[in-house]
Amino acid sequence: MMDLKEFRANAHRLADWMADYLETLEQRRVSPETRPGDVRGALPATPPAEAEPFDRVMADFERVVLPGMTHWDHPNFYAYFPGDHSPASILAEMLTAAMGAQCMSWNTSPAATETEQAMMEWLRQMVGLPDTFTGVLQDTASSATLVAMLEARERATNFRFAKEGAAAPGADKLVVYGSREAHSSIDKAVRLAGLGEGRLRKLPTDERFSLRVDELAEAMRSDRNEGMIPCAVVATVGTTSSTGVDDVAAIAKLCREHGAWLHVDAAYAGSTAILPELRPHFRGWEEADSIVFNPHKWLFAQFDCSAYFVKDPGHLIATCGANPEYLKWSADDQVANFRDWGIPLGRRFRALKLWFVIRDFGVEGLRKVLREHIRLAGVVRELVEEHPDFEVLAPSPFGLVCFRYRPARMAADDPKVDELNRELLARVNASGKALLTHTTLKGKYAIRWSIGSLQVQERHVRATWELVQRSV
Amino acid sequence: MMDLKEFRANAHRLADWMADYLETLEQRRVSPETRPGDVRGALPATPPAEAEPFDRVMADFERVVLPGMTHWDHPNFYAYFPGDHSPASILAEMLTAAMGAQCMSWNTSPAATETEQAMMEWLRQMVGLPDTFTGVLQDTASSATLVAMLEARERATNFRFAKEGAAAPGADKLVVYGSREAHSSIDKAVRLAGLGEGRLRKLPTDERFSLRVDELAEAMRSDRNEGMIPCAVVATVGTTSSTGVDDVAAIAKLCREHGAWLHVDAAYAGSTAILPELRPHFRGWEEADSIVFNPHKWLFAQFDCSAYFVKDPGHLIATCGANPEYLKWSADDQVANFRDWGIPLGRRFRALKLWFVIRDFGVEGLRKVLREHIRLAGVVRELVEEHPDFEVLAPSPFGLVCFRYRPARMAADDPKVDELNRELLARVNASGKALLTHTTLKGKYAIRWSIGSLQVQERHVRATWELVQRSV
Repeated sequence: MMDLKEFRANAHRLADWMADYLETLEQRRVSPETRPGDVRGALPATPPAEAEPFDRVMADFERVVLPGMTHWDHPNFYAYFPGDHSPASILAEMLTAAMGAQCMSWNTSPAATETEQAMMEWLRQMVGLPDTFTGVLQDTASSATLVAMLEARERATNFRFAKEGAAAPGADKLVVYGSREAHSSIDKAVRLAGLGEGRLRKLPTDERFSLRVDELAEAMRSDRNEGMIPCAVVATVGTTSSTGVDDVAAIAKLCREHGAWLHVDAAYAGSTAILPELRPHFRGWEEADSIVFNPHKWLFAQFDCSAYFVKDPGHLIATCGANPEYLKWSADDQVANFRDWGIPLGRRFRALKLWFVIRDFGVEGLRKVLREHIRLAGVVRELVEEHPDFEVLAPSPFGLVCFRYRPARMAADDPKVDELNRELLARVNASGKALLTHTTLKGKYAIRWSIGSLQVQERHVRATWELVQRSV
Repeated sequence: MMDLKEFRANAHRLADWMADYLETLEQRRVSPETRPGDVRGALPATPPAEAEPFDRVMADFERVVLPGMTHWDHPNFYAYFPGDHSPASILAEMLTAAMGAQCMSWNTSPAATETEQAMMEWLRQMVGLPDTFTGVLQDTASSATLVAMLEARERATNFRFAKEGAAAPGADKLVVYGSREAHSSIDKAVRLAGLGEGRLRKLPTDERFSLRVDELAEAMRSDRNEGMIPCAVVATVGTTSSTGVDDVAAIAKLCREHGAWLHVDAAYAGSTAILPELRPHFRGWEEADSIVFNPHKWLFAQFDCSAYFVKDPGHLIATCGANPEYLKWSADDQVANFRDWGIPLGRRFRALKLWFVIRDFGVEGLRKVLREHIRLAGVVRELVEEHPDFEVLAPSPFGLVCFRYRPARMAADDPKVDELNRELLARVNASGKALLTHTTLKGKYAIRWSIGSLQVQERHVRATWELVQRSV
């Protein structure tokens, strides 16, 4: 094992490696040419019995691992949604790693708990939520959404589902609603929470990919008439396929009427609520019971860092809490023990990177970067719209543009268009010069161009557009 | 926002900070003197509008955060179970942070997925599990145990619980078993999975804090006779309170008889299965359906890094998988997409630190450290046993000794003994020179002395023993 003197030298070596990596990102392929099995095949099948020098480990890292990585902060990473980091976030992670603190309870690291409280308060103010909300960090929006569904389940059954399971009165009557564009994590959460996939109503969307509120009203009424219990509605601000925006205010009204839990999934778009000009998209989210958005997506505090806000922390704790003797502490009644605010017991010190990032950018600095990304998405949109052989397939209120190639000679419903676009995307990505992903929108294959890297500039976008045109 | 030139300089500064931190750990208090609210009160109530220089951020970190941290790798950290890190692990986390990759699917970072596959294979061999097991990393044992309970639920109901919820046939008949010493995460998992707390049978243990197999046999038989369905048994190797060891082989036999899922919770002790001389404690775990142990506890790959092994990955994927259009990739049928092997969608590159740690120590090096920790636990045990006013309260097969102060003049059942120990522990911890925690064992207040820091030496243990004696 290396000693601390060697550690110091290696840490300096990696400090340079990190800076070099960020400085040279643009020169790399965005995604690797790796074929399935390449990396595993290059790693020994058995662990080494004896210690190996760090030089050899690092050389193998550069030879085997690095060429097999997708570079999420490459300026031409336009895939999925951004998974951002930033210099300040990386520095915070260095400190987090060095301290190695396990932050499950207040007393296992008081400063971690209280920094998290302070950062959730900062975030709450930044996105303009009222002080009726209290926040906690989760690893991912998927986990937060599962927690929300569990909270909804327990509110609807007065904690009898948790106590009695399927035998609880009403347990077999609970229904959850969301749009067909809602994220797959909703389906997964409903399944894992034991509500039953068949009890998730995925309702149609309008031409802007927003949940049709009339359909929701009708579904809730009809379920209610049949003796079912509308348990929860998931409203999405910024759906994954196309960043559609549900009418949260109208949905909130229906939730109040039926006593259903309102969970707002703003995993991607939530960060943009720091921009006053985009706040209208979030109208009504202050009526929610729970809200999730991911600073790790578009607020430069790297994965994992998902912000979960609730109106009633007591209900959250009653749903997720546990208090065995070996975790008790004398000051438990005066502090927050975040182990009781989610699924895992152990917790990393995630708030540190938020603190570093918000101070390194300043709120105005964060706004500036987000506005530039949104401006660049506007550039993409214009380029696509101006070209006779390409078309935009959805509104683009944030940083994502969904489009496809459709030569003027081909009809909108020609099934060959999908195939052309599948091939186009494969060629663009195979070049290693950009990475985009796809979805289907109203049955049409759509290419998703998502802007979010801290390093992206207009020249990258324009060069990628040239690449796309060349690749048809 | 700092530019990359500033980032490089700051990264070097933090490289020194990290090395200084590790070198001076021993000079710090183990746990802080922080009172509830101290840290939060020292942080501004609102976020800064403008960017702040990193010097100021770092100064605040050292002034506000650092004095409020518990130092988990302090040589005199004897609390809970270890939450270890090591130089190689920290270096790996630096690279992970710099790349910021999101490793949900094979194609979002092929090398991350395949390194994880290779490391789970190394771990499997290291702990002596047969190749009928396949592993995946989870964040915590709590999450892994929840996944295990969900897998059990779905096997028992042929996936109808997931599909139909509480209305599924048999959904209200499922029973889960574990000992009274089983971890609180079992209770939590049973509750969250919708099985119902009332359906968890926490059975008595023997004088060694092992699940009484006769009681389990009787409970399963009796439930079966009453039309209930024995769904899962959680066997623990190394319970949290006292590191009790259940007879996994005998429990496995009962599970086979009743078709129940066998989950082995070896969160803490699992790492010791790399020691051939401790393998007898794990006899029968190869019969399990699922096993969890935490390299982040006692294998120097820092939190979060929890190893979950299953016999049937197909069943795991059927329980936790989701495959929406926007995540599909051309090579999906040839690769592992670990997003489908647990609860969260997004995933950090956790395998890198395992790779670095195993190579930096070598398997023999890891064995050496674990053996030294276990030897030191033996020293503690001897010191306690030799003292007329102290007594050991449980066997100590691994690195934990449970003991209490009981002056020779006081009877074993004198209720004042608990109070004396509560005060003793408070004095020891308030000194800042060591940190221990407590539990209750068979109704008695017990102090837990858990050995696990990479920096702990016999002199630390002996000095802490002096401190304990002085603090009565």
